[in-house]
Amino acid sequence: MIGIDWGTTNLRAWRFGAAGMVVESREAPYGVTRLPPGGFDAAFAEVVGEWLADGETGVLIAGMAGSRQGWLEVPYLECPAGVEQIAGATRLLPIAPAAVRIIPGLRTRDADGVPEVLRGEETALIALLARRDAHEATICLPGTHTKWAHVGGDRVLGFTTAMTGEVFEALSQHTILRQSCAPPSADPVPPPGFMAGVAQAKRPGGLLHQAFGLRARWLMGEMAQGEGTGFLSGLLIGHDVAAALESGVSPPIILCGADALVRLYAAALEAFGIPHEVATGEPVAEGLVLVGRRLGLVG
Amino acid sequence: MIGIDWGTTNLRAWRFGAAGMVVESREAPYGVTRLPPGGFDAAFAEVVGEWLADGETGVLIAGMAGSRQGWLEVPYLECPAGVEQIAGATRLLPIAPAAVRIIPGLRTRDADGVPEVLRGEETALIALLARRDAHEATICLPGTHTKWAHVGGDRVLGFTTAMTGEVFEALSQHTILRQSCAPPSADPVPPPGFMAGVAQAKRPGGLLHQAFGLRARWLMGEMAQGEGTGFLSGLLIGHDVAAALESGVSPPIILCGADALVRLYAAALEAFGIPHEVATGEPVAEGLVLVGRRLGLVG
Repeated sequence: MIGIDWGTTNLRAWRFGAAGMVVESREAPYGVTRLPPGGFDAAFAEVVGEWLADGETGVLIAGMAGSRQGWLEVPYLECPAGVEQIAGATRLLPIAPAAVRIIPGLRTRDADGVPEVLRGEETALIALLARRDAHEATICLPGTHTKWAHVGGDRVLGFTTAMTGEVFEALSQHTILRQSCAPPSADPVPPPGFMAGVAQAKRPGGLLHQAFGLRARWLMGEMAQGEGTGFLSGLLIGHDVAAALESGVSPPIILCGADALVRLYAAALEAFGIPHEVATGEPVAEGLVLVGRRLGLVG
Repeated sequence: MIGIDWGTTNLRAWRFGAAGMVVESREAPYGVTRLPPGGFDAAFAEVVGEWLADGETGVLIAGMAGSRQGWLEVPYLECPAGVEQIAGATRLLPIAPAAVRIIPGLRTRDADGVPEVLRGEETALIALLARRDAHEATICLPGTHTKWAHVGGDRVLGFTTAMTGEVFEALSQHTILRQSCAPPSADPVPPPGFMAGVAQAKRPGGLLHQAFGLRARWLMGEMAQGEGTGFLSGLLIGHDVAAALESGVSPPIILCGADALVRLYAAALEAFGIPHEVATGEPVAEGLVLVGRRLGLVG
């Protein structure tokens, strides 16, 4: 079976052996927003054509390829949902010589009845669920849009989204805070200023006010040039964590995602005194195998 | 006397008669960030040269001309400060044939000891103070960086800043919310969606999560294209007002600024059940006269 995580900016593809082990993997900058109109077939053929020619026929795709701007729109599936419901809601796109199935995203509503949606993360979530016992937990997938999922039994019960990563980019690049934010550096994690930002987020005052505090500190010489970026990151992640805790999470919190980002969220959760675990590995690939197995595409 | 409000993007100049009445006014796009290096003298001569040739000698400038990137840096004056302290802290820039004085900005610290700064608004604040009795009040000047000033007696006692306007620009133009935000239209005020955004801000959940709610509502067809911009504006102004109230304000709240923006804040304060007044007129020009009078530049 071939599995693809077709995201907004990138595409990752895996070729799985009979037992669901990864045989080969590829990555290409053919995310949904980077393709020309109608460019899905060509990108697909370029990345996995060789594997298809080699005899693979079952293909399973997760992510933005199933969105309205994607290859074939697959409606969001309502929570609670597990691997069985997700497999049953995949949609078939017949592409010679393959049978391509696209996985649905999930939808739910928050405590205020406001809709929530995700695409791609459902595949990681069911893999993380399958690694655990049936007890309730909260899975946090940090990123451009951080997801906090409430899971229990073999289902995703619900989730909320925070625009943490994207707001960080917008504020650090497109506001007056740019002057006080040096480009992020890889070391150390967390960066200087980060824990001060988290500590600030734990106090009242509000994000819109506290963000200006970075500017004012910088003007008054109370924030070093190298600390601004870390402070803003800590302030936003701190607000994200504080709001998630206020909305109610089920401990333990399981963090999964890019290593540096997971370490930032872990440091913030630590500052809030919340127990957490870090999940490693390649959960999207694992989740594709779980859905593929349910559909008889892999052993 | 000549008075100038020299801001970040624009410059406004007034020529005052002997009693402090406005005789003539001019506006030019020569804000501090738009000038070439060393461009202050030329911009100054172009805008007010005629008035100087006509015999004016006293010039008073408020705003970003006194910043580090300005014409002459004038250190921030510590709160509490009133017209007397501000007049005493102006700095002289001798420009033939005039004596140019630049007004200092103000600084203070918020409840967490974080520095706060403003430049230009001090001149409006002392004018609004002079219109009132000595009772404490809160003056709100909405804008790119909204200022909430605590005033009492004849002084500005302290203030806080929220990056409300600038965060609105950054989120509506530089994040995925752009798709759901039509360009703002002048009518009606408040725009469709605004009050729903304010109502959302009164609920727990946090700004980073609630902003994504706009995206998800739009994806699910639960937010009309024309309502997204108003919703985001209401959400941000609602969070600004909620944080200000949580930090403690002294009623009444006096709103002063651009008409449409004042009406948005008034609508949000109304939703929070907080009494408020709207101050009209040209408080910066009034404040320049008050400082000029103290310095003997105008009668």
